[in-house]
Amino acid sequence: MDISGRLSALRHEMEREHIDIYIIPSEDYHQSEYVGEYFKAREFISGFTGSAGTAVITPDKAGLWTDGRYFIQAEQELAGTGIILYRMGEPGVDTIRGFLEKELPDGGTIGFDGRTSGISSGREYAEIASGKHGRLSYGDDLIGRIWSERPPLPSERAWRLPLSCAGENAESKLSRVRREMTDAGADVHLLSSLDDIAWLLNIRGNDIAYCPLVLSYMLVFRDHAELFADEDKFSEDLRTELDRCGVVLRPYTDIYQAVRALPDRMSVLLDPERVNYMLYRSIPGQVRIIERENPEILMKSCKNEIEAGNIRNAHIKDAVAHTKFMYRLKKIAAGNADADSGILRDPETSEPLTETKASGMLEKFRMQQEGYIEPSFEPISAFGEHGAIVHYSTSPDTDSVLCTGKMLLMDTGGHYLEGSTDITRTIALGDVPPEEKKDFTLTARAMVRLMNTVFLHGCSGTALDLAAREVFWKEHLNYNHGTGHGVGYLLNVHEAPVGFRWKEGRSPMPALEKNMVISDEPGIYIKDSHGVRLENLLLVCENEENEYGRFMHFEPLTLVPVDLDALLPDRMTQEERTMLNDYHRKVYETIGPLLEDDEREWLRRYTRSV
Amino acid sequence: MDISGRLSALRHEMEREHIDIYIIPSEDYHQSEYVGEYFKAREFISGFTGSAGTAVITPDKAGLWTDGRYFIQAEQELAGTGIILYRMGEPGVDTIRGFLEKELPDGGTIGFDGRTSGISSGREYAEIASGKHGRLSYGDDLIGRIWSERPPLPSERAWRLPLSCAGENAESKLSRVRREMTDAGADVHLLSSLDDIAWLLNIRGNDIAYCPLVLSYMLVFRDHAELFADEDKFSEDLRTELDRCGVVLRPYTDIYQAVRALPDRMSVLLDPERVNYMLYRSIPGQVRIIERENPEILMKSCKNEIEAGNIRNAHIKDAVAHTKFMYRLKKIAAGNADADSGILRDPETSEPLTETKASGMLEKFRMQQEGYIEPSFEPISAFGEHGAIVHYSTSPDTDSVLCTGKMLLMDTGGHYLEGSTDITRTIALGDVPPEEKKDFTLTARAMVRLMNTVFLHGCSGTALDLAAREVFWKEHLNYNHGTGHGVGYLLNVHEAPVGFRWKEGRSPMPALEKNMVISDEPGIYIKDSHGVRLENLLLVCENEENEYGRFMHFEPLTLVPVDLDALLPDRMTQEERTMLNDYHRKVYETIGPLLEDDEREWLRRYTRSV
Repeated sequence: MDISGRLSALRHEMEREHIDIYIIPSEDYHQSEYVGEYFKAREFISGFTGSAGTAVITPDKAGLWTDGRYFIQAEQELAGTGIILYRMGEPGVDTIRGFLEKELPDGGTIGFDGRTSGISSGREYAEIASGKHGRLSYGDDLIGRIWSERPPLPSERAWRLPLSCAGENAESKLSRVRREMTDAGADVHLLSSLDDIAWLLNIRGNDIAYCPLVLSYMLVFRDHAELFADEDKFSEDLRTELDRCGVVLRPYTDIYQAVRALPDRMSVLLDPERVNYMLYRSIPGQVRIIERENPEILMKSCKNEIEAGNIRNAHIKDAVAHTKFMYRLKKIAAGNADADSGILRDPETSEPLTETKASGMLEKFRMQQEGYIEPSFEPISAFGEHGAIVHYSTSPDTDSVLCTGKMLLMDTGGHYLEGSTDITRTIALGDVPPEEKKDFTLTARAMVRLMNTVFLHGCSGTALDLAAREVFWKEHLNYNHGTGHGVGYLLNVHEAPVGFRWKEGRSPMPALEKNMVISDEPGIYIKDSHGVRLENLLLVCENEENEYGRFMHFEPLTLVPVDLDALLPDRMTQEERTMLNDYHRKVYETIGPLLEDDEREWLRRYTRSV
Repeated sequence: MDISGRLSALRHEMEREHIDIYIIPSEDYHQSEYVGEYFKAREFISGFTGSAGTAVITPDKAGLWTDGRYFIQAEQELAGTGIILYRMGEPGVDTIRGFLEKELPDGGTIGFDGRTSGISSGREYAEIASGKHGRLSYGDDLIGRIWSERPPLPSERAWRLPLSCAGENAESKLSRVRREMTDAGADVHLLSSLDDIAWLLNIRGNDIAYCPLVLSYMLVFRDHAELFADEDKFSEDLRTELDRCGVVLRPYTDIYQAVRALPDRMSVLLDPERVNYMLYRSIPGQVRIIERENPEILMKSCKNEIEAGNIRNAHIKDAVAHTKFMYRLKKIAAGNADADSGILRDPETSEPLTETKASGMLEKFRMQQEGYIEPSFEPISAFGEHGAIVHYSTSPDTDSVLCTGKMLLMDTGGHYLEGSTDITRTIALGDVPPEEKKDFTLTARAMVRLMNTVFLHGCSGTALDLAAREVFWKEHLNYNHGTGHGVGYLLNVHEAPVGFRWKEGRSPMPALEKNMVISDEPGIYIKDSHGVRLENLLLVCENEENEYGRFMHFEPLTLVPVDLDALLPDRMTQEERTMLNDYHRKVYETIGPLLEDDEREWLRRYTRSV
């Protein structure tokens, strides 16, 4: 069935249910960043494969809303479907709200699968419907009815993260959460965010690409807890373990019925950003709702000492893999590139190296590391002008052949039993133009400046973003993303609640606390030419406490050289050069002993003082 | 009547009114930063003269709460009164709330003059009273009853700020405010903040030291407005002018009755931070309250082009005065100091120079400037170890004699018809110890770094504070105050809503907008030794707009040399030296031509490149 067939089938269902406008968002039932195949309803109905976008269907119109990252891709993928592309943020382009207000007839019905929308979207749709004296229908998954070959929900096994990795057992975590519930006056805590559940119970799974999580919901009561997940995923051992912690396992879909059955006068703690609209609406009217951020979020962002030690080890392994990769790549660029075209060739097969093959090379080195599980996100391998696309994703059409004279931007990471990594290195292949070196140098300066800040306890990432961004702003340049994000421990690589950003949010970011892990990743993107990004993960550490307060600093976790071939040291201050030299000394001292002789010799040269 | 007599008289009144605990805060009826003599009820009842503090009286106890700035002073002033000093913020010291909860008997009454407390304090007292099944009495000014020689409310004339100074007439401002009222759905806007009213109507007065404001309240309706103020202060001309703008003048105290008479179903816009509790409680129950920040606040913080031009001129005059002063002071330190003691002497009278006399010298030079009105705040002239006290105020007891070998910190400012200034310079008298020079140099680096930041539109002062503070944090030092505050135009020298601070507040600070005026005043305070603070006012300016956004930068308004005698240029980076040299070049080029020959020659030397 092609897109137009799918649209007709959906419209038929809409008519049957008296729904005037049906909305299909990109989310799963848990507000996850990545979603499994089963949840790709928006892709099914529109053909658009990007990660962010919303389809809105009326009896005679079909629109797809997406943001600037996906304009070109969406245009291509929607061609011939009759679906109109709404370029979000462009002047004169209707918002979804504007479209709904225009198109919904008086007394009409807006429909969507309430499990795939957050509370705030659901409330907004309700408001629009009520403005037209209409109603909301959020109970039916119309796509499910017409999607005959829908992939099944994943059925991979869940597994237990050993205490040597987690550093704290589930009983202890549950009792900390229950203390927060008591403080908030809550009888039960409803959880739907997969990483919060995985952290709380020390379980992992394989239900979503790049996120070792188990599709699940949870109700934490004062005296026991209920986990809603596919029971077949849980071994006898794991069930026994859950049972020991007072956690009862129930079928995944039973959560809605369990929430509907919450006794009157109970008070339920939930995070309005992390519960879907259907769950929210399933709460009986007499139950008191306490809306606040999940207490698990701040808890899991402050890694315990065992986690912190493990994370250091995971980063050493990752650095070994990445350094081996860089060394090979540099060697190929110097010795295995065509004299005329500059094309890099695999020394064994003589095949040209491409973005994908470079990515594969790096992945092979990671796979050699003990405890490596899988990539922690979809790797970015962006050559030349592709580097200017912040969220570039290689497709067979765009898989550039690498050649000398340009840079390769690699933003990759791995999940290890000992924690997760996320690193970006931009690597010069042969000699690159001076303009690109200037941009590389700016980025390196920004990264080391932020990495070396010292700050008082109480400080959030908002006050520190400038340390990286200032060198760009002084040149009237900018990068249109935050300077950093929190990183989970074998959970989500983008983890709330901390980050580096220059714009204050509606509410303040929490202060940086000991053992938080946060990325430091400034960049610069010159359209159709090149892009540079450099990213280290940092661990928040205590420093001197004196009469002025408790000082803190960062320890770099990522220990991989910053490509000196692309650096212009005389465009750096003495202080910045010292920062880079100190970092490189640490890289050599830590990683050097773990390499083969030729690799170590290469690393020595690439970590020399400048 | 001494303090104990006053306390007995108050307790007698409390008994008569069946009040168990009576609270006397420091505020006037308008939440002003400085208060007039009439409002110094807390000083009257306790003898404590500091600007911040709250007295709480029970039948057998009397306490005074104040913060760290005033511990020593309060201790001295309370000695022998029987009033207990509660050092706020010290471990184990009861808060006012804690005290009230302990001392209020069940069913008891908390009393205070509801005009002298903000809404949130009033609500807190109400909550405490209700927790004890008691009640609140906020209608009586018991201090007024016993204060027989209370100074009268001021009766100085109000005056009209000419359009050449204000740059926008009152009709235009009123219509802008009414647009905001319409957007908020408000029928009337209740105003009680004196600077908002003065700005809105282009009136000034002389009711409060250092603040050229008129005691007043205001009700802005859609079609007219009512100003509540002492009618005798207004000339015939001024009344005609107000009348022309549709503003009716009514007696000052009539506001309460006017608020009580607001018709049902009206909606009133008010700023919960800027309306007193009595006013708030006077609003009839059927009137809808729309709580939000006064729209005047953001409007008046963005100076118009005429104001900005005037402010530049005011700063040039102020810089001439300050430079003349610095020149004289340096000359005395070099040529008129005792050989042995190093005491500085007035060249004419041979009297020793003191903090107060130095302050007076500077004030004399300001008074020579056309359009100068008065100091914009209580001047700080802090010699040697007094410089370490952030809010130092000279008293006859502490008025140090100046001598060589130490620094003098002068934080002063003036109100001119063309705007207000606020400048801090720390000046070395003779040669000062290397440690002090190090601290001076750190402070100078911090000030010029912030002054030279470039940033994207949308950025608030929270993201920029680091530019100044970072050099201190790197040395594990800090100053326990924000780096800067907004500055009013012939209004309050501390003006909301912008500033530089590193801690995010509960809600974000607004973005820096063109023509805002903000101070840049880092410092370092070494207890019992010395203090350094340097302060320039900055004007927010537009810079290049390109594909990355609208860039902004600061123009220094303050044009007075940073004392090179106290500077260690080799502890600065090349970039910082260039920033300081560029600034000094501008100082010399702008101020030099306005000086006498000997002064200019001195300025040339003190603005030389380092």
